[in-house]
Amino acid sequence: MSLELYYWDGLQGRGEFVRLALEEAGVDYVEVARGKPSKGLGTKAMMAVMQSPDEPYPPFAPPFLKDGDLVIAQTANILFYLGPRLKLAPEVDSLRYVANGLQLTIADVVTEAHDTHHPLASGLYYEEQKDAAKVRAHDFIDHRIPKFMSYFERVLAQNPAGDSFMVGDTLTYVDLSMFQLIDGLLYAFPRALKRFGEHYPRLAALHDAVIARPNIAAYLDSDRRIGHNESCIFRHYPELDKAAT
Amino acid sequence: MSLELYYWDGLQGRGEFVRLALEEAGVDYVEVARGKPSKGLGTKAMMAVMQSPDEPYPPFAPPFLKDGDLVIAQTANILFYLGPRLKLAPEVDSLRYVANGLQLTIADVVTEAHDTHHPLASGLYYEEQKDAAKVRAHDFIDHRIPKFMSYFERVLAQNPAGDSFMVGDTLTYVDLSMFQLIDGLLYAFPRALKRFGEHYPRLAALHDAVIARPNIAAYLDSDRRIGHNESCIFRHYPELDKAAT
Repeated sequence: MSLELYYWDGLQGRGEFVRLALEEAGVDYVEVARGKPSKGLGTKAMMAVMQSPDEPYPPFAPPFLKDGDLVIAQTANILFYLGPRLKLAPEVDSLRYVANGLQLTIADVVTEAHDTHHPLASGLYYEEQKDAAKVRAHDFIDHRIPKFMSYFERVLAQNPAGDSFMVGDTLTYVDLSMFQLIDGLLYAFPRALKRFGEHYPRLAALHDAVIARPNIAAYLDSDRRIGHNESCIFRHYPELDKAAT
Repeated sequence: MSLELYYWDGLQGRGEFVRLALEEAGVDYVEVARGKPSKGLGTKAMMAVMQSPDEPYPPFAPPFLKDGDLVIAQTANILFYLGPRLKLAPEVDSLRYVANGLQLTIADVVTEAHDTHHPLASGLYYEEQKDAAKVRAHDFIDHRIPKFMSYFERVLAQNPAGDSFMVGDTLTYVDLSMFQLIDGLLYAFPRALKRFGEHYPRLAALHDAVIARPNIAAYLDSDRRIGHNESCIFRHYPELDKAAT
């Protein structure tokens, strides 16, 4: 496979959900925007694909994946495509739709996490919408995180194949994405999630099990893993965090 | 096929994207939440599936589809599943991922359209967040609608199979969803979209071509099509609308 991942340099963002799958599978891939312009890579090379007037199927935004001539956009779609190829999807066809449904629900939380610091306009600075951000972030902490996390905990509890994985009885990309979602929320809202393990023991166990996987552990320890930061979706602004009610 | 569509009664919402595909294909389906409790249908029957402690793969929220025992959640996922079965997906496998990427981008616009009237918290009334809604709606009109619509217009223009369809050379569920997105935006923001056809001629032509399809025309004319209203995603609040800059 000659896989090219296109995503903004300098942050984990939505690209990270794809990276975790590629790293767990141990396949080679090129991070186009992080590469050197002298090698035909870099952010300009990424923008050239997006803005190309000749690209038959141009993507709206990063992340997108190139596999040969095929350009695949949207995080959940990339993972739906890669899952079977990386052996990180359920073997049973019908369960792949269950996995995709869960992945899209994770994506919904990611969008809501972004909107906690940008509730009014993605084009305005956070500093221009701090008051609104506080209202939205506190609603997210008091209502949305509990609603989503109770649901995901229930998915684990009701999985007929046991509560170690989100779908079926083997690791899939959904488990990796669930780790990343929890990891991002723990970074952004440490006060809100202080008792996470108590409230959601199965999710906490899944989070820890993913970290302990050799390929993931090696990746998280490498310089390919960019740290959480305030250019990303999950931002730690102490004024937006609070203990959950 | 014995298809059951589960979505809130009384509004088009995200369920409408699925309905349009089912109606175009002319297949039988049951609208569970709209049915009579005496027949085991209705909103309570829908909630029972969502809250069931025995459901192996419970959905987070409507819409979801039941095809036999399989429960499929998330609009784009339902359409990805139904597409080939309804002959509303590209025949070429790789193009199905292109279709899904576009469908997910449409879903992103739908979420942003919702957030124009609920930027702070989905659990608060619109009246409690009117000032913030105005800021977000005007940003949506001035920046987001043009960005998304220019992109979708470009997708049509660059489609190697011609500019009549979003993907390939036959109608897919993506075209039906694009119609619904445009239709919703025209309802919610008539001033902002006054010159829509001038700015986006290919999208306007696609919108009109979908309306003219016999099965869609019959559906839009039937009482199965609930009108746009202010319980929905696309709401017409005149104070949020304005001419685009």
